[in-house]
Amino acid sequence: MEIKTFEKMKTFSPEKMKKTNLFNTDRMFCDLYCFEADQRQKVHAHDGEDKIYTVLEGEGRFQVGEAIETVSAGSSVLAPAGQPHGVTNTSGKRLVVLVFMAPKPHHG
Amino acid sequence: MEIKTFEKMKTFSPEKMKKTNLFNTDRMFCDLYCFEADQRQKVHAHDGEDKIYTVLEGEGRFQVGEAIETVSAGSSVLAPAGQPHGVTNTSGKRLVVLVFMAPKPHHG
Repeated sequence: MEIKTFEKMKTFSPEKMKKTNLFNTDRMFCDLYCFEADQRQKVHAHDGEDKIYTVLEGEGRFQVGEAIETVSAGSSVLAPAGQPHGVTNTSGKRLVVLVFMAPKPHHG
Repeated sequence: MEIKTFEKMKTFSPEKMKKTNLFNTDRMFCDLYCFEADQRQKVHAHDGEDKIYTVLEGEGRFQVGEAIETVSAGSSVLAPAGQPHGVTNTSGKRLVVLVFMAPKPHHG
């Protein structure tokens, strides 16, 4: 059985926000995003995939479309396909986010 | 922005495990499953959809295929398409699970 424990998997980088893949199937993927203070995921968009961010630890400033909100551990945010979205860790502490995306994007 | 806070959304039923939808798009859905002690989600399978269970609170006995494991808050479990899977709350306490599924099944 594929079981992934966040505390064991989370990995930070002094360089930039660190992504760690948890699950990867033909239909979806699921990553952990780990942010040190002031790190960010740049605002971007993808036309065909929906993303759900779930804050596990800390809090961040989430942008979806034109809206920007501070979201803390214990909440999820939907970034629908086509909408610009990104995250900035303005909290001064570490931020850990579970990310679920479907369908799996096909790059290249 | 669609933000869902688990503490505000979680709902239990004395009758059976209670599902509360958080997000529902053309590509996926995301539910909260809330189990009182001894409640369960029966073992079932769906051929075309992958599911990820993430334990938010408590612990449960998760079955995927032939394997059965106890999984606690802070871990996720993959139930790949086609594999029988289910959950039983044997912990004696409440169990709250975040569930992602993609693609969205089309019933009826």
